[in-house]
Amino acid sequence: MTSDLSKFKHTYQIRVRNYEIDWQGIVHNGNYLLYFEVARVEYFKLAGLEIDERAITGKTKIVVVRNEIDYLSQATYDDELTIYTRIAAIKNSSFICEAVMIHAEKNIVVAKNVCVHAWLNPETNTASPVPTEIRKRINEFEEGNAAIQWPSIDV
Amino acid sequence: MTSDLSKFKHTYQIRVRNYEIDWQGIVHNGNYLLYFEVARVEYFKLAGLEIDERAITGKTKIVVVRNEIDYLSQATYDDELTIYTRIAAIKNSSFICEAVMIHAEKNIVVAKNVCVHAWLNPETNTASPVPTEIRKRINEFEEGNAAIQWPSIDV
Amino acid sequence: MTSDLSKFKHTYQIRVRNYEIDWQGIVHNGNYLLYFEVARVEYFKLAGLEIDERAITGKTKIVVVRNEIDYLSQATYDDELTIYTRIAAIKNSSFICEAVMIHAEKNIVVAKNVCVHAWLNPETNTASPVPTEIRKRINEFEEGNAAIQWPSIDV
Amino acid sequence: MTSDLSKFKHTYQIRVRNYEIDWQGIVHNGNYLLYFEVARVEYFKLAGLEIDERAITGKTKIVVVRNEIDYLSQATYDDELTIYTRIAAIKNSSFICEAVMIHAEKNIVVAKNVCVHAWLNPETNTASPVPTEIRKRINEFEEGNAAIQWPSIDV
Repeated sequence: MTSDLSKFKHTYQIRVRNYEIDWQGIVHNGNYLLYFEVARVEYFKLAGLEIDERAITGKTKIVVVRNEIDYLSQATYDDELTIYTRIAAIKNSSFICEAVMIHAEKNIVVAKNVCVHAWLNPETNTASPVPTEIRKRINEFEEGNAAIQWPSIDV
Repeated sequence: MTSDLSKFKHTYQIRVRNYEIDWQGIVHNGNYLLYFEVARVEYFKLAGLEIDERAITGKTKIVVVRNEIDYLSQATYDDELTIYTRIAAIKNSSFICEAVMIHAEKNIVVAKNVCVHAWLNPETNTASPVPTEIRKRINEFEEGNAAIQWPSIDV
Repeated sequence: MTSDLSKFKHTYQIRVRNYEIDWQGIVHNGNYLLYFEVARVEYFKLAGLEIDERAITGKTKIVVVRNEIDYLSQATYDDELTIYTRIAAIKNSSFICEAVMIHAEKNIVVAKNVCVHAWLNPETNTASPVPTEIRKRINEFEEGNAAIQWPSIDV
Repeated sequence: MTSDLSKFKHTYQIRVRNYEIDWQGIVHNGNYLLYFEVARVEYFKLAGLEIDERAITGKTKIVVVRNEIDYLSQATYDDELTIYTRIAAIKNSSFICEAVMIHAEKNIVVAKNVCVHAWLNPETNTASPVPTEIRKRINEFEEGNAAIQWPSIDV
């Protein structure tokens, strides 16, 4: 994944909460995955995907099929973390998010995440093509930086 | 990672709790990472690593540096999940755990995990070689299936 | 609430997981509430309430309206906790659960919980009488120890 | 506890995160307890208690001994919640926090919390008097609204 932060059009701030700290005095590794998700859901909302609303109303269903997280340094209570999120690629029925978490004060990378989502048909639970309308919105939001696979015939 | 379950010497059962279910009616993706960790900590205990006790007493410090999770099918409330865990490799100052989660009733793979830990010097927070004693115990516990890098001179 | 454990017909075992420990090295107070809920949901299932399945299918809706927790001693990683749960009373549209958590090894009380649920009409979200059928099942399960308010005319 | 919001000198905003929603489509009841704690820890910091920092350095130890929560209405994804927190009373070795959570948009009460903390001697784990210096700071921060028990002789 890219480390060039200028490619990211979306950032989100998280402040570490006390109950997210483990017995080593640092953020428990499971919470980074949640932080990345909070930022990503926010990205979806701002990019006009309305993924969660659709998920609630049952009109569509998007599931996470893969997560990769690299933990590079440690965060602790009250730290401000800035999460850069982008959709790096859209394939036939999946899309790939990349994210970088920066410790706001120290200006170092805390963690990186690659998260792959699949687009499902909510009735059959089988893979379904990402709608062309969504590809257009992401192309616009990402200012052409996302590797989007376009359907040969618009549907 | 391997899909050959006969290579795994350790299993652990988890039953999905109601509060681990999200608004889609399935286990929230963040919880799989926690399930894998619960099984892994149990593995550590049985393999004689006493990693958490050491972590508590401050004698050593082991941190997670990378997680990969593939979500292959969905689990929901009250499902019994069997987690197969093994240490697949030990390098100089890191070791690699592999795990497979099976839906006990349906006998299908729910998720897979590769988790890399680093061994740190608790005072300097820098990488420190995995002790030879630990390498020996894992070699024995894994019955020779782990790819263990042995130090050229025993320290 | 009663401290007479002989009045409780249901027990459930929980073992403390590593990620439930906070920076003080003890179980974070928020987790006790989750432990009590896991035991209570299990009670519901065994008592034949099928509350969660109904909740999922939308046939009925039960919500927690009040929780009281007294924290009496501290639990930590790997401790076995035994949770005694009972329904102490059923009123018109609510019922009261009482629970006591015992440290299995030390045989001391870790925490106590009183939890009040309301029975809602799933369409209007307003209070709805607890069905007589449920009152009968609880009366039987609790062997007459629950203070059950019976409707004047059976419906 | 009081419902007079003018008595509260401290407010904190929480926005509901997606993973905090349960299968009923509403915030899981366990999360309200966490929200109240996040607001309370913030209160402690602003009131000059530095409770968590002390907790980390081991200089003092404060534990939660009782929680009461009333759930009055339901919150869901993306709702803005305003939490009013105050210390209502300080006794010999304990202090009582009260909090009210308001749904920012609907302007209705979502939940109320009474939380009792005990001040412990970090070495013996036994009750220890709340320091007079802390009583003074809270008295000032609460502008005289807290029922503070003063030691007969300043120590």
